[in-house]
Amino acid sequence: MMNQRIRQQDIAKKLGVSINTVSLALKDSGRINEDTKLKVQEVAKALNYIPNSIARSLVQKKTYVIGFILPSITNPIQIETAQNIESKLLANGYNMMLMTSDHDKNYETKALDILLSRQVDGIFLFPTDIQDQRKNQEKIKSIRDANYPIILLSGGNFILPSDSVYMNQYLGAYKATEHLINMGNKDIALIYGGTRNTEKHRGYIAALKESNLEYNPNQVATVQNSSYEQGYRAASQIIKNGSVTGILASGDYLALGALRWCREQGLRVPEDVAIIGFDDLEASRFAEIPLTTITYKVEELTTQATDLLFSLISNQEKLTWIEPRRFEIEPTLVIRESCGFKKRSERLL
Amino acid sequence: MMNQRIRQQDIAKKLGVSINTVSLALKDSGRINEDTKLKVQEVAKALNYIPNSIARSLVQKKTYVIGFILPSITNPIQIETAQNIESKLLANGYNMMLMTSDHDKNYETKALDILLSRQVDGIFLFPTDIQDQRKNQEKIKSIRDANYPIILLSGGNFILPSDSVYMNQYLGAYKATEHLINMGNKDIALIYGGTRNTEKHRGYIAALKESNLEYNPNQVATVQNSSYEQGYRAASQIIKNGSVTGILASGDYLALGALRWCREQGLRVPEDVAIIGFDDLEASRFAEIPLTTITYKVEELTTQATDLLFSLISNQEKLTWIEPRRFEIEPTLVIRESCGFKKRSERLL
Repeated sequence: MMNQRIRQQDIAKKLGVSINTVSLALKDSGRINEDTKLKVQEVAKALNYIPNSIARSLVQKKTYVIGFILPSITNPIQIETAQNIESKLLANGYNMMLMTSDHDKNYETKALDILLSRQVDGIFLFPTDIQDQRKNQEKIKSIRDANYPIILLSGGNFILPSDSVYMNQYLGAYKATEHLINMGNKDIALIYGGTRNTEKHRGYIAALKESNLEYNPNQVATVQNSSYEQGYRAASQIIKNGSVTGILASGDYLALGALRWCREQGLRVPEDVAIIGFDDLEASRFAEIPLTTITYKVEELTTQATDLLFSLISNQEKLTWIEPRRFEIEPTLVIRESCGFKKRSERLL
Repeated sequence: MMNQRIRQQDIAKKLGVSINTVSLALKDSGRINEDTKLKVQEVAKALNYIPNSIARSLVQKKTYVIGFILPSITNPIQIETAQNIESKLLANGYNMMLMTSDHDKNYETKALDILLSRQVDGIFLFPTDIQDQRKNQEKIKSIRDANYPIILLSGGNFILPSDSVYMNQYLGAYKATEHLINMGNKDIALIYGGTRNTEKHRGYIAALKESNLEYNPNQVATVQNSSYEQGYRAASQIIKNGSVTGILASGDYLALGALRWCREQGLRVPEDVAIIGFDDLEASRFAEIPLTTITYKVEELTTQATDLLFSLISNQEKLTWIEPRRFEIEPTLVIRESCGFKKRSERLL
């Protein structure tokens, strides 16, 4: 059906003028007669002509469109990050195009190809799994080597194939676990997304080790996604299993789901079970028992990320000559009621 | 910097073969020598050649990319809708490209232009303001007339410029208000997004009128966005103002923010203040007092919308020959604790 689209030659034919005249008229050029120009524009409008700005972009070499790929549009903190970056892009005359990888490496590859074929000026990428060194790591490197700025929005303790700006999730989990320990908890559960959250897992283990607490696999639950429901279910399993008095969840919705389960069971939070989440979402502040959590410094991260992108875009040298840069942002602990004051536990007094 | 990208002629020059040979090799054609093909592919890889699938799409006339425009990526129910449509598109070999209009008609225009210039096969659009009959209404009509399927995801009691699939928000607000009245409430407040929610406003007024209750502008609060915070603030203003015993909020987060304020004031929900939200988000089910709300039938809506899109895409006739269709989906009331059982108010007994 696309071949029914009106082209410049159709307008030229209709008016008995050259395609060049039509092209100049549609560009609002001063090089042709004003009457002819208006006539062409009128006919173009009447025929519903839609300018083919791909052709235009290919000539101008710049599209002012930036691609953004994330695993899923339902992750609230990644969406907030995307929204924040978009505001900054719009303020600078750029538009953003969002695609998802659906947590699948193959879709990620496809999304990269589609965005590149649409001539975006740069790409932001939340990788599906940063630790997986195969396929897309090489692809990302080759994209950068082909001189497309591509900025990774997660990272960690390994070699990254391109420039990156990300929250240090290891440190976030470390600080949260340490706080749970300082509040008197010895049996601390972790509810997390498995391979999607390996950095948080590492931070949790490191903090336990630092305090000579044993890592107990029975106190670790892996969830499919960061929903209330998964947190609710995980809490029910983990707490029934034993003597857990503290929970660290890899996302606030998980923590709030766990909180709901505890309340239904008549458990006091934080007295019986202390809970810490991740990301400091709005829901955490307005919860029945406001949630202690780890910040995700969206504003700081997106400012760094867009500044870096613009500097890469305006740079005239080949990107292969510039060493990939890495900006790690340090999260902080926000203490609220779900794990705050010194624990009033019998064991402590 | 784009002119540093490797093109087919660069590969041809490097190998001393024709551009046609390179082109066939990169298409994995059987029409050329296998050795030559492998050599070309090897050099292409070494030079980081990125295939220009725009050119390819222009020839094939189909891109298998669908555009999706929504006012803001932070509206949870619109994001859920987008995510659900994307799954259905992926399952059918299509990819989705998401853009936002930032609640601004001009950005909406720009997003439409960008998607069209990228040759998408169709567009889903949550209009910024469906009632605004200027500019984009005409533009949307002209896009459809140019044979691009464009499906609107909101609508209401007015003429729509293209095919549409949407929840009947008027009816949702009517049912919710009616339920509040049936539970014994006479002073019912509305917290809503102003011009973004005119259909809900209409439904609220109609239900009041049906029960001979007076519309009181002092009991209506307009908010900037659908956040907990805006709901919390609106509730504090409205309830302090007078004798309100029921609240209808145009979004669940607003309702949950209002719930939080009531709880902090020591008000019982639903006994002192009954609350109903909109959209049936997961947070509502897991709230300290589970929220009565109006469903947004995401699955039903997205099935209808994608079926319609595919039928428009595969149709060989001009879209101007097909009358725009309209699918209105009827929302239902989900009764939970925040407004459920017959109100135990003194006035009723």
